[in-house]
Amino acid sequence: MQNKKKHNSALEEKKGIPTPEITDDSTISKVISKRKEQPTANELIQGILDGNITALSRAITLVESKNPKHLKKANTIIKGCLPYANNSVRIGVTGVPGVGKSTFIEALGKHLISLNKKIAVLAVDPSSTITKGSILGDKTRMADLVKEPNAFIRPSASGDSLGGVARKTRETIILCEAAGFDTIIIETVGVGQSETTVHSMVDFFLLLKLSGAGDELQGIKRGIIEMADAIVINKADGDNVKRAKLAKVEFARALHLYPEKESSWAPPVSICSALNNEGIEDVWEMILTYINTATNNNFFDKKRQEQNKFWLLQTIEEQLKFDFYNNKTIRIELQKQLKLIEKNKTTPFAAAESLLKII
Amino acid sequence: MQNKKKHNSALEEKKGIPTPEITDDSTISKVISKRKEQPTANELIQGILDGNITALSRAITLVESKNPKHLKKANTIIKGCLPYANNSVRIGVTGVPGVGKSTFIEALGKHLISLNKKIAVLAVDPSSTITKGSILGDKTRMADLVKEPNAFIRPSASGDSLGGVARKTRETIILCEAAGFDTIIIETVGVGQSETTVHSMVDFFLLLKLSGAGDELQGIKRGIIEMADAIVINKADGDNVKRAKLAKVEFARALHLYPEKESSWAPPVSICSALNNEGIEDVWEMILTYINTATNNNFFDKKRQEQNKFWLLQTIEEQLKFDFYNNKTIRIELQKQLKLIEKNKTTPFAAAESLLKII
Repeated sequence: MQNKKKHNSALEEKKGIPTPEITDDSTISKVISKRKEQPTANELIQGILDGNITALSRAITLVESKNPKHLKKANTIIKGCLPYANNSVRIGVTGVPGVGKSTFIEALGKHLISLNKKIAVLAVDPSSTITKGSILGDKTRMADLVKEPNAFIRPSASGDSLGGVARKTRETIILCEAAGFDTIIIETVGVGQSETTVHSMVDFFLLLKLSGAGDELQGIKRGIIEMADAIVINKADGDNVKRAKLAKVEFARALHLYPEKESSWAPPVSICSALNNEGIEDVWEMILTYINTATNNNFFDKKRQEQNKFWLLQTIEEQLKFDFYNNKTIRIELQKQLKLIEKNKTTPFAAAESLLKII
Repeated sequence: MQNKKKHNSALEEKKGIPTPEITDDSTISKVISKRKEQPTANELIQGILDGNITALSRAITLVESKNPKHLKKANTIIKGCLPYANNSVRIGVTGVPGVGKSTFIEALGKHLISLNKKIAVLAVDPSSTITKGSILGDKTRMADLVKEPNAFIRPSASGDSLGGVARKTRETIILCEAAGFDTIIIETVGVGQSETTVHSMVDFFLLLKLSGAGDELQGIKRGIIEMADAIVINKADGDNVKRAKLAKVEFARALHLYPEKESSWAPPVSICSALNNEGIEDVWEMILTYINTATNNNFFDKKRQEQNKFWLLQTIEEQLKFDFYNNKTIRIELQKQLKLIEKNKTTPFAAAESLLKII
């Protein structure tokens, strides 16, 4: 596995494989979407490598599935895609609801499309997002981007407060990369635990902020500022421009107080108006500068390796839990023990002991 | 196991066991502290039930230990203490650094001592706290409280960003309760993931806030306000009184916008000056009102049962990981696989698979 930073045509250069055309009318596409039976893992892998969106979507659904029957097939697909993955820039975008994440991602996405990039947008933390009514809105709000043949937008369908979707985001990135997407944007609402998860899987972590609005409204976790590789103040338009410029100075000053990052990258602050498409090119230039800097001082590779180690541990722990809770005897006994706890007839400690004895 | 709400002398009433005197000069204390060899699990249990602080401290250290050799002994102690636990009010106190948590807890603690209560103060999230230099400071800052024979203050000794200490806080609560403490106060810094963990183990969750200071300084997770059973605005003294009163009105209004809680308790907002010992009695009255309300509508028991179910799952998952990572073959192989990841010679996915095959 290689952590390639040259995104666009990295696949050709590296492995002699043509960059897949992203298309939705290949023969495989027709086969996959028309027939009722499920395509095989190999058909899906082939579809993904061909850049087929239907195959990609189906594969992601399999990967996100909680049905134990889907696990093996999902794993086969991930394994099949892994050799073709990693050749992208992964960007995390966070900010509280109302900061304009969708508008920003749409503007940035359209700019990238104009540069002949292929971008995938993944949404994490739907449990928060759903209650705020924006998950289904994303598709609508990114109305322009969604029409682009070189853009793939995947709002996660089901809320899972335990981070179930975020858990599979890393695997989804792999599939998107194998499908030829060279820029992956992962959107997260900066209010839960998901931003830490997202931070652990991206190369560049961008924090969107507002000027003007009371900071309480931006009540974002303190730790997020420490994770940010850049702060972008959005909605710098109309009456807001002056305040945005002031906020930029303030944030820049505040960032100086944080200790130097391991990447030796000093996170810049910039302003933009996603609505008016202003400042978006600058944001992209800033990201490119980071990628170049981090590539040159080897931090880019080092970070991905650290992320891979973390991923290894997470995969193991997920699997241990999965195997345990999907054991038939355990499932029956767990229900019994939970009932006993409800009746105050056992302690969590004793219940855990009796369950662990089974395996 | 019973979730008793009558705190003070609940042990006598319930099980015919005399409330242990908290003392540090019993014979067991001398035996435990003087000799060099480790006391047995049974000696420690007996010491805890006698209210012996040295035994309690040693047992907590064992429970927090990551040494696999200590696990069995720790589990024996927890099991031995469980029948005598649960008879306390568990209060979580959160707020960003600078909000005056230590001063507040000391003031509240001294008030409780004056009411003949026995209080234990546990600090969680030392990884954040240490960098902010306050963990060792806690002992100093709670200088008065620490002298009280009926108070036990336990700052966690070692930072562990993975929540290792918080992981054992629940067990520590059990030990403190068995030692006769009827009010457990758990302090957490409201900036990490620890407050969710703390929320999952307390009966009442109190959010400390400041008026006056910029809200950005209070950059507390949005979700915390939703978890709070009360907001207390601290440092309402001197020039700050007016602003604190204004802030109280604002927070009260803001809280109205949140959906009703399952407990049907509407979280109140109050102001206090922990420094001047003003408003502390009111806070305690407020907590008592909550306990009464929640007891009467059965929410108190229901919440503890839910927490116990959560604890069961957490205990299981901790143990699964513990068993896995402490397997000798796994440990050797894990190091190998991590090295391969560093050299880009395997994927996290393949590495996980090869490790999971071992068991």
